[in-house]
Amino acid sequence: MGRAVFKKLVTVEEALEALYEHVKPNPLEVEEVEIKEAYGRILGEDVIARIDLPPFSRAILDGYAVRAIDTSFASETNPTRLRVIGRIPAGELPLLEVKEGDCIEIDTGAFLPKGTDAVVRVEDTSIDGDVVKIYDSVGRGSGIAPMGSDVYHGQFVMSKSEEITAEKVGVLAGLGYHKVDVLMRPHVAIFSTGNELIEPREELGATKIYDVNQYSIGALVQKSGCIPIYLGIKKDEVEEIREAVVEGLRCAHVVIMSGGTSAGVSDLAYKVFDGLGGPGLIVHGIAAKPGKPTIIAAIGDKPIFGLPGFPVSALVIYGLIVDPFLRAMSGKKGEVRRKLKAKLATRHISDRGRREYLPVFLKHRRKALNAVPVLGGSGAIASLSSADGVVEIPENVDLIEKDEIVRVELFSEVRSADIIAVGDSSPISQIILEELRRSGRKVRAEFRGLEHGLTWVRDEIADLLVACIPEDELFDPLRFPSKLTNLRNFKMKMVWASYDKEIFYPGSTFALPRIGSGLRRYAEECIRRKVENFDVIETWSYDASMNLVLNRRAISALLPLYTVTKYDVKFIDAFCANIIYLIRDELLSTRIGKTLLRRIRSKELDLTLSSLQGIS
Amino acid sequence: MGRAVFKKLVTVEEALEALYEHVKPNPLEVEEVEIKEAYGRILGEDVIARIDLPPFSRAILDGYAVRAIDTSFASETNPTRLRVIGRIPAGELPLLEVKEGDCIEIDTGAFLPKGTDAVVRVEDTSIDGDVVKIYDSVGRGSGIAPMGSDVYHGQFVMSKSEEITAEKVGVLAGLGYHKVDVLMRPHVAIFSTGNELIEPREELGATKIYDVNQYSIGALVQKSGCIPIYLGIKKDEVEEIREAVVEGLRCAHVVIMSGGTSAGVSDLAYKVFDGLGGPGLIVHGIAAKPGKPTIIAAIGDKPIFGLPGFPVSALVIYGLIVDPFLRAMSGKKGEVRRKLKAKLATRHISDRGRREYLPVFLKHRRKALNAVPVLGGSGAIASLSSADGVVEIPENVDLIEKDEIVRVELFSEVRSADIIAVGDSSPISQIILEELRRSGRKVRAEFRGLEHGLTWVRDEIADLLVACIPEDELFDPLRFPSKLTNLRNFKMKMVWASYDKEIFYPGSTFALPRIGSGLRRYAEECIRRKVENFDVIETWSYDASMNLVLNRRAISALLPLYTVTKYDVKFIDAFCANIIYLIRDELLSTRIGKTLLRRIRSKELDLTLSSLQGIS
Repeated sequence: MGRAVFKKLVTVEEALEALYEHVKPNPLEVEEVEIKEAYGRILGEDVIARIDLPPFSRAILDGYAVRAIDTSFASETNPTRLRVIGRIPAGELPLLEVKEGDCIEIDTGAFLPKGTDAVVRVEDTSIDGDVVKIYDSVGRGSGIAPMGSDVYHGQFVMSKSEEITAEKVGVLAGLGYHKVDVLMRPHVAIFSTGNELIEPREELGATKIYDVNQYSIGALVQKSGCIPIYLGIKKDEVEEIREAVVEGLRCAHVVIMSGGTSAGVSDLAYKVFDGLGGPGLIVHGIAAKPGKPTIIAAIGDKPIFGLPGFPVSALVIYGLIVDPFLRAMSGKKGEVRRKLKAKLATRHISDRGRREYLPVFLKHRRKALNAVPVLGGSGAIASLSSADGVVEIPENVDLIEKDEIVRVELFSEVRSADIIAVGDSSPISQIILEELRRSGRKVRAEFRGLEHGLTWVRDEIADLLVACIPEDELFDPLRFPSKLTNLRNFKMKMVWASYDKEIFYPGSTFALPRIGSGLRRYAEECIRRKVENFDVIETWSYDASMNLVLNRRAISALLPLYTVTKYDVKFIDAFCANIIYLIRDELLSTRIGKTLLRRIRSKELDLTLSSLQGIS
Repeated sequence: MGRAVFKKLVTVEEALEALYEHVKPNPLEVEEVEIKEAYGRILGEDVIARIDLPPFSRAILDGYAVRAIDTSFASETNPTRLRVIGRIPAGELPLLEVKEGDCIEIDTGAFLPKGTDAVVRVEDTSIDGDVVKIYDSVGRGSGIAPMGSDVYHGQFVMSKSEEITAEKVGVLAGLGYHKVDVLMRPHVAIFSTGNELIEPREELGATKIYDVNQYSIGALVQKSGCIPIYLGIKKDEVEEIREAVVEGLRCAHVVIMSGGTSAGVSDLAYKVFDGLGGPGLIVHGIAAKPGKPTIIAAIGDKPIFGLPGFPVSALVIYGLIVDPFLRAMSGKKGEVRRKLKAKLATRHISDRGRREYLPVFLKHRRKALNAVPVLGGSGAIASLSSADGVVEIPENVDLIEKDEIVRVELFSEVRSADIIAVGDSSPISQIILEELRRSGRKVRAEFRGLEHGLTWVRDEIADLLVACIPEDELFDPLRFPSKLTNLRNFKMKMVWASYDKEIFYPGSTFALPRIGSGLRRYAEECIRRKVENFDVIETWSYDASMNLVLNRRAISALLPLYTVTKYDVKFIDAFCANIIYLIRDELLSTRIGKTLLRRIRSKELDLTLSSLQGIS
């Protein structure tokens, strides 16, 4: 079977240009909403004041409406006396007119009586029968909001296409708008393609994965000011995809599909749009990493975006291409992302000829801000969700050295992690780190094995290292960088768990921690002593290993006794492991270091751990 | 009638402390929502992965699943040949096992077959019958996303109380969450008090104004992550307010009222909460400007905020006191407001002893960023809505000099105004400025009269000055700062409009432009020539003046002929006015200056204006 390979990749800019040549992202018609529902919507009309605001000159404080000239000589020692001829409460029309030597008591918000041009505040007066003493002179206009001083009748107040803020809701109300015209929100049909995809509500089969893209794109579509319509998961077949596209074009203004656009099924794209009408396929492949397998098409004036199937790729391309288009339609302004400079914490090799978008998280190190590339590739949505921002690497750069300055575009306002924990996973770590999390610390745990942990400690990215090594294996301080202090050791009983009695026979499959984990080598040696020929499935966690046994994909797994006793499985003793908590020295003097130290050596923790079987 | 005056003002910090002593802003229970609805909500549970992600080791590209070791010597010139024993599409379980020298064709996303540990991408191969030639060696793990490499089973993925971003919606979907627990949104009851207030849907009477606060606060409540419940407008009477408070306590978690809390009606506050239960009134008066007349009370564990009636004061106090409380309940993180330094464009006098929050807009002037206080006091919601940010002035500062550096806290990302137009209002300006607005320029028009305009031009705040002066009055260049260039003059016929034939009789009321407008003095002289004793109502615009005549509040108004002919009123000739458009010289060389010049001298404008009666 022959497979097409992408041949003419275009840049993001070229892709957008090609799209805009065929389809203009014009705002839709307007709809009328009550102002209670208007917050965050986009104005569909110019607002030109139909009244003055305030609609009449009014008092802005409680006191006495006067002719300013009558107070000219008032002072603390020689107050001016004015006759109070009445009182005018808010909401009522004053019928009296004020002449020389007179005044009227007035409430905040009340209509200013004829003849007066100032209000003396009550704090500067004292009353004596129907005479008020005024202790301070006031100028003309003092204590008054003149008619139209906020907005004048006929004033151009807001433009069509402005976003309605809370303050603007207030302005609309003040101008007597009960309802207002806003732009209609575009409808965006979304579906995913892929034979391996299932909906999150379904049971996970052995070869299936849950669809991410419909939902993450659905949320982004809302963020872009549009309404998502979920069309579900489609098989990677021309007819099914074409039907979904047609359905999307019928019910929405824009269609977004994801998956089904890699080089392997690229022929599909041509076939899908064949016969649906012009202009059809516009862009087929983008010179970006991630995001190469992107297609853009249009039928009539409706665009169809085909995003890569990998969740991270889909999100990157959404941000670069779909978001600007949708925002131009919805009128929702794009968020301005803050950019800052940071040192790249690790050497990074990029592809020449493709612009790369590298997700990173931020970490303070030696008083400088560092950008650390997140683990995981373009399939790693969780890694992306924990990133603080992205570094754009131009097409002509193929290498960035460690500590080189890069520009990070922040996803939102971020706080760099307070503590980063690495090393081997263990059931104890969750318990230890939980309290830090609860106290509001930003804890980043990347338990990706001892080797990876050591690298990050050497690079001064990580603060806390958890080493889980066999008890027999002497703890060799030389293996660890000198700048680490041992906070505490625990012992953990390890067992071979299984659904079967007999586990060590030729060809059996074992679930083991990944290569690079502290126990991996020793575990394999243990097995090899009993049987020569065996298979291994690697996992990142004991839960995952347990799961493989429960699903009978592995005959046995190396697990802590503590984990095993929660399940109804057989087990036999393996060996004892040492869990060592090491912290970077320079953290010891910091507040978070001290908190951690106190926590890890506390009686409460001892008490908690003493209740865990096989841990001491 | 005696009036209480605020006596013990507390600072914002003291007010919050006092409140928190009685009421804790604890998050509510959780509710389950579908992940389609979860975007922007606050997690109500810790998310700990119940599966591996990906759930199995899978190919991340189209190609051939191989034993990496078999490709060790592959090169462009000396490709390795492997036997293709089958094909494994995405979503299917591979039944074949790969032995030395074998490989399996594999799709992106497909389950990695037993025995293989790498995938060679199709671009590095060529097929020849059932043999594939491999042109590049691959390392172990290449082209694969190992099981659990994004998230491992048991991994702590997200904390309770995190906001659910679009990426996190994706993570939840990927982990098989169809629904998720989120924090319930607090319900907040809102009402306004004030005898002068009416709802925007009602007809505006002579002494009423539209209620702003219910709606602006309602929008802010949504922004704080809560659900507003609108209880309407209440009279300034103890019983009615108390009933509304009781109703609010019944249907909501928090009650916000506004108005009815100035010193004049401060006794009400005590009476309202009397007998409703403890702790009752907590704070009565805050040392902030604006915002002094603020009260905080609590009945049981529900807080009641009484905000000032003035819209700007209400919004400032909401931001300082209510918003932090509501966000602590809803879990919605506050927006981090960017701060920047700017020169204060005008001298500002503040009240010692009260912290002042001064709304400003930003303007570039001589390459420095300037903060210009917005016009209008604490009643001026429209002015606030057009502000870019706020300057906080400490209690111990009573004067800030012009050009002194201040810190501006931005409301959102702002773009300083492209052009600021000031001076006299005229029907032509709207036409001239509209095109600039349409072309995406940020135009700020503050037509507050010639005198104000001249001040802003001298202070280099304004760019375009519109002067409207009587034709008889010689245009005196000396009145205008030297650095202005005259762009163009128009003539505008002015008339006396009226509903009556006879207008110049003793005691008649005239609607005139405000003092400081270019035509005011001359207009008054014209009247005085005919009648000695008359009243004046000042307006900011011809529309407002027209309105006073239509409502019979003024016998006559000075108006452009053009405005009058749109209405069915009588009029007699007054005089001819000159409208002069002046631009600051330094703008002439800029792009926007050139655009304006082109526009104002264009044939299109001539054509438009020639159709307007009385303008030439």
